Amino acid sequence: MSQPLRLGIAGLGTVGVGVVKIIRRHADLLETRTGRRIEISAVCARDRNRDRGVSLSGYDWEDNPVALAVREDVDVLVELMGGSDGPAKAATEAALAAGKDVVTANKAMLAVHGQTLAEQAEASGRSIRYEAAVAGGIPCIKALTEGLAGNEITRVMGVMNGTCNYILTRMEAEGLGYNALFEEAGRLGYLEADPTLDVGGIDAAHKLAILAAIAFGTRPNFDGVEIEGIEHIELEDIRQAADMGFRIKLLGVAQRTARGLEQRMQPCLVPAESPLGQLEGGTNMVVIEGDSVEQIVLRGPGAGEGPTASAVMGDICDLARGIRLPVFGQPAAMLKELPPARTGLPAPYYLRMKLVDRPGALAKVATILGDAGVSIDRMRQYGHSEPSAPVLIVTHKTTRTAIDEALKLMRKLDVVASAPVALRIEHV
Amino acid sequence: MSQPLRLGIAGLGTVGVGVVKIIRRHADLLETRTGRRIEISAVCARDRNRDRGVSLSGYDWEDNPVALAVREDVDVLVELMGGSDGPAKAATEAALAAGKDVVTANKAMLAVHGQTLAEQAEASGRSIRYEAAVAGGIPCIKALTEGLAGNEITRVMGVMNGTCNYILTRMEAEGLGYNALFEEAGRLGYLEADPTLDVGGIDAAHKLAILAAIAFGTRPNFDGVEIEGIEHIELEDIRQAADMGFRIKLLGVAQRTARGLEQRMQPCLVPAESPLGQLEGGTNMVVIEGDSVEQIVLRGPGAGEGPTASAVMGDICDLARGIRLPVFGQPAAMLKELPPARTGLPAPYYLRMKLVDRPGALAKVATILGDAGVSIDRMRQYGHSEPSAPVLIVTHKTTRTAIDEALKLMRKLDVVASAPVALRIEHV
Repeated sequence: MSQPLRLGIAGLGTVGVGVVKIIRRHADLLETRTGRRIEISAVCARDRNRDRGVSLSGYDWEDNPVALAVREDVDVLVELMGGSDGPAKAATEAALAAGKDVVTANKAMLAVHGQTLAEQAEASGRSIRYEAAVAGGIPCIKALTEGLAGNEITRVMGVMNGTCNYILTRMEAEGLGYNALFEEAGRLGYLEADPTLDVGGIDAAHKLAILAAIAFGTRPNFDGVEIEGIEHIELEDIRQAADMGFRIKLLGVAQRTARGLEQRMQPCLVPAESPLGQLEGGTNMVVIEGDSVEQIVLRGPGAGEGPTASAVMGDICDLARGIRLPVFGQPAAMLKELPPARTGLPAPYYLRMKLVDRPGALAKVATILGDAGVSIDRMRQYGHSEPSAPVLIVTHKTTRTAIDEALKLMRKLDVVASAPVALRIEHV
Repeated sequence: MSQPLRLGIAGLGTVGVGVVKIIRRHADLLETRTGRRIEISAVCARDRNRDRGVSLSGYDWEDNPVALAVREDVDVLVELMGGSDGPAKAATEAALAAGKDVVTANKAMLAVHGQTLAEQAEASGRSIRYEAAVAGGIPCIKALTEGLAGNEITRVMGVMNGTCNYILTRMEAEGLGYNALFEEAGRLGYLEADPTLDVGGIDAAHKLAILAAIAFGTRPNFDGVEIEGIEHIELEDIRQAADMGFRIKLLGVAQRTARGLEQRMQPCLVPAESPLGQLEGGTNMVVIEGDSVEQIVLRGPGAGEGPTASAVMGDICDLARGIRLPVFGQPAAMLKELPPARTGLPAPYYLRMKLVDRPGALAKVATILGDAGVSIDRMRQYGHSEPSAPVLIVTHKTTRTAIDEALKLMRKLDVVASAPVALRIEHV
């Protein structure tokens, strides 16, 4: 019989407790599958006395995660505290330095410090696994790093923030505005302590930066992600998009272009009939496209105790089975540093604005678009009872630069009554 | 630098050629990712002189796959010949006996001989990998065996025969009957040499038997799969199902029940709005449900040169990286032998029949159902111009045994003008 795999779990929030529960419930099953007993040596959290609904009496308690990380009887640090810096990073570095493997759900830490951590892990012959950091229970890191390793990846996309998708799908289903649903999400506990992490797209952008590093063999570059949240999406946009056969999603897209690595996390229109368009509520989706495999779509719960703990356990089982790969799927020293290709490849755009009801107003807008080289596919001025008329425009494929140029000029027009909205229509 | 991983490829059909192309195209990328050069030492196929659109001049040629399997300069046999027995099995056994790992796309061989092959692989300390055997390019074997290893799997489902799904979705889209589309599929080369493998559900059942073994830790038991093809599905069924918000899919379902292991491959009604219901054409889908992860849905191309070769390459990369697991995710000796639980757990059923237009006809049918303990949810007799009237019944949850009992009695009724059709409505 092999030696047990001994864990030190730092962080006993929802996910940490979920991991403890699985290890207690499935001790035999896990041993059958991995060939080793998976044991918890010690745990660590801020409040020792909180009732977490699971007995921790069999495990040593550490107050300091760094002390936990370097314990003699810990083979793997399971870091579930979160935060890009602070205790999470300190404990991870201490664990690697002490020759331990690390399993983490910490997207921010990997998106921001992934390169140096990967280098440190390799220098000490250890691994950092982070399936739970991206898209909850969906084993997308494994699919991308291992299952699709024979592909040159051409594009990775994802709806990876359940709260945003919940708000957007409820806006359509209930006909409620963004603010009402933002408040509802808060009441239901769906928002992070700092809600801009969710609705501002930052949380999802962390995840995209991680996927992009694996997909394209590049250094994780969170600063290179173009981020736009969903705060400015109006019910009107959702309705108009639906009317044209689209849905609005906070969509992450990463691809290599001639100008560098494109990483965008922004609200986009996607065809309502596509798997991404059909995604409802808090469910996540990751779409991976490769030169051989064409397109793989992975769908599942993006958060929650069970699903996230399932992802953590997948990593722990891998380590128990002796599976240990370079952190981003290839040696850290070989990860390339590509310049960010901002504004993305050309695409059609959806534009919405309100025009003062005055002869020639539409002509002025059309002229600006024409001058910017933006060609119009469809244009519609629709029924209204106000002094200003809502106008919708779908463009042919164009660049974001051209759109931004046109928007800048439009804002100066005296006939434009509200700031024009521009959303990319993503070909999925 | 590590030693190269040297392959012997047996079978140079579509998939074999796809594998050769990837290895030539991505030699450097594969080396970066796996840390080893992946090389082809020798190949083997029936016809040496056929032009396969790729140069094979750099590789030794073997006429006999067994001779290929045991070559000194081969570390991994890549078996892409197919067939549950014959040369594929002989070469696989020879490779394992000679201490080689095996990568295969051979679902029939694993579904039928999986247990003995797994035992042999373990006895020789080698592995058999078979991602390409199930659902083409979708890395579902890896997701189930590794990514979701922390879960007790509760159900596995899949639409895993692209040809059947192509026929069924075209029937609905084009309003064409089964026979016309069966012929079309043949013309387009979508059918196996023996088409009953496709439309009879056997090919998909092989895949289900493999998934079930991993999911439930049981010996692969192809004989235990209840199989029903799509040959008897009529356009009328597809239309009526659509009218009630369902789609008909050739759906595989495996789950553990109190009576044993349930494995069914049969046409079912699934909600049109579910991911399975929305699946169109040749695309495959695998749905995995676990006690922690809830539900994971994997979607992708189920066949074709690129996608299938991608799956084979994923396995080869794993071996190059030193990942080697028990064949069905746990030691072969620990795989349980569960009795097949035939006919499945209770479910609602869709029934369609034609009744002679005579007073009391419907009452007779209703009485038979009542006597069999089958309770009716909805019943409809609809517009017709023939002497017999089409009748549709949706039952409440009931057992297949009760349905079969009722069907047997209905067939004896003089008012039933055509053999009644019964399709399970699967809760997905």
